[in-house]
Amino acid sequence: MTSVAEDIERLRLDRAHGASWLAREAVRSLARAAEARPAETPAEFLAYVRRTARALASARPSMAPLANLVAYVLDRVVLASQGTGIVALRRATRSAAEDAVRFSEEATLDAAANAREHLRGAVLTHSYSATVIAALVGAKARVGHVLVTESRPLYEGRAMAQELAVAGLKVSLITDAQAGVFVPQAQAVVVGADSVLEDGSVVNKAGTCLLALAARTARVPLYVICETAKIAPWPADTVQLEEKDAREVAIGLPPDVQVRNVYFDRTPARLVTALVTEQGTLDRREVRRLARQHRRRFAALSEGLGP
Amino acid sequence: MTSVAEDIERLRLDRAHGASWLAREAVRSLARAAEARPAETPAEFLAYVRRTARALASARPSMAPLANLVAYVLDRVVLASQGTGIVALRRATRSAAEDAVRFSEEATLDAAANAREHLRGAVLTHSYSATVIAALVGAKARVGHVLVTESRPLYEGRAMAQELAVAGLKVSLITDAQAGVFVPQAQAVVVGADSVLEDGSVVNKAGTCLLALAARTARVPLYVICETAKIAPWPADTVQLEEKDAREVAIGLPPDVQVRNVYFDRTPARLVTALVTEQGTLDRREVRRLARQHRRRFAALSEGLGP
Repeated sequence: MTSVAEDIERLRLDRAHGASWLAREAVRSLARAAEARPAETPAEFLAYVRRTARALASARPSMAPLANLVAYVLDRVVLASQGTGIVALRRATRSAAEDAVRFSEEATLDAAANAREHLRGAVLTHSYSATVIAALVGAKARVGHVLVTESRPLYEGRAMAQELAVAGLKVSLITDAQAGVFVPQAQAVVVGADSVLEDGSVVNKAGTCLLALAARTARVPLYVICETAKIAPWPADTVQLEEKDAREVAIGLPPDVQVRNVYFDRTPARLVTALVTEQGTLDRREVRRLARQHRRRFAALSEGLGP
Repeated sequence: MTSVAEDIERLRLDRAHGASWLAREAVRSLARAAEARPAETPAEFLAYVRRTARALASARPSMAPLANLVAYVLDRVVLASQGTGIVALRRATRSAAEDAVRFSEEATLDAAANAREHLRGAVLTHSYSATVIAALVGAKARVGHVLVTESRPLYEGRAMAQELAVAGLKVSLITDAQAGVFVPQAQAVVVGADSVLEDGSVVNKAGTCLLALAARTARVPLYVICETAKIAPWPADTVQLEEKDAREVAIGLPPDVQVRNVYFDRTPARLVTALVTEQGTLDRREVRRLARQHRRRFAALSEGLGP
């Protein structure tokens, strides 16, 4: 059993897993915390769940699914709290967390399945994405070759390349800088997402927007595959691109060389050929509608709603 | 004293120096080889110089100045060879090599000086370029901040960042993948070149064409600074993008992950705001004219011209 503070620190430092995986970890942490919490009254319990949900939601400000999944759980707990006791509320929290995890897992696999039709021939991808792995493995019969960028600074692409090779795909690893050479040789560029903003722009690992520009220039389609829980509940202009420890980029340089490590970038919607989710390919209107829906639920995290 | 074969191997492996520096090393090697070569007749001597020049010119197929500088030296030796002896030919080779080195050094500094007017505020650059260092240091009073990409796989950008910091410039180092985040914050993107092709496209360290796309999208001007000896004597469609050892990118991956290390890419002319040389800013017509001129001289390397 770990404390929520330890869970948040682990979420904050994790670079081996994608945003959906971390979001599921966040709701699991919320359920564990609710289970363990002594409380005198349902109101006190609910205030604690809201406080904890808020802290977990903001562990990774570039990753919308953390916010959406914990907001979903809080919403269910608030609904269940009408005239019930603490025991029932604990049960409601656990059950909502389990549902959130299951929905997210199913949505991810459904999004991957919906993307398969777009994948054939040589496909280029960036960084690590469990959703993209599922899509590529599902389209294995038609995908001849996967080009994977290494994804500096922590080389998540190396793990991606190895998992795809183990799954039987033909894989080549390239540096991020070689994308300009290899994108024109691909039939498709495919990436996951950390967040999709209300305007359809996509927050993903740094380097994605360069790939998107190269793809557009070479007339290669760019597919973003993700569950709709990636659609952010925040206004697009408030998005935070997380900056991580500079020592991940370089160590031992003289102190007068400042080192920057902005971990994400934002790809404008006009460069995305299709946003493929568990609900199929979404157009801008549908993204805006889901963003509004997520925002309403997210508001309950910070506002004094509920009993 | 080293053999030409050793010199060529050193040129082939060198990733710490730019194309102009390596071209000067190549003509120095040619002069040393000519100096040491026993020969019975001027024709035999000339045949040896031509053979050696050809080998040196092809040490780095992505770098035009090697071809142009050794072709210049050979041209001078051929001209000097009319009715003269071996001693005079050795002297002519040494003198031509010295001139080639001096012209190249002066042209590089003049190109850098001509570029200074374009540099102000925040400037982003890629990889290592002695020409770009000269230009930025010369414009130090107006350049507020230099953003340098690390330039995978061998991180030439780290040396670039350190030299600029030592020269008193404010410097930040970023991964290549962060260019999409930082290019929009720059007033100019500036790079050197390994070769400029007859169509005005620019061969430079892998990653350059992604920077160029990001610059165009953000309406940030892209300046290429180089001596005219970078203008390639080969047809544009025969350009070779050198591929280097895969172990520079990653070691220890399972053998079913192929690793690629294409070291250069090609940026189309339409993305280059200005090509700044020792002759000032060149338009497409002037690039074509110089390419033709270089091609005539280069032909003497392979054809059976001369006495």
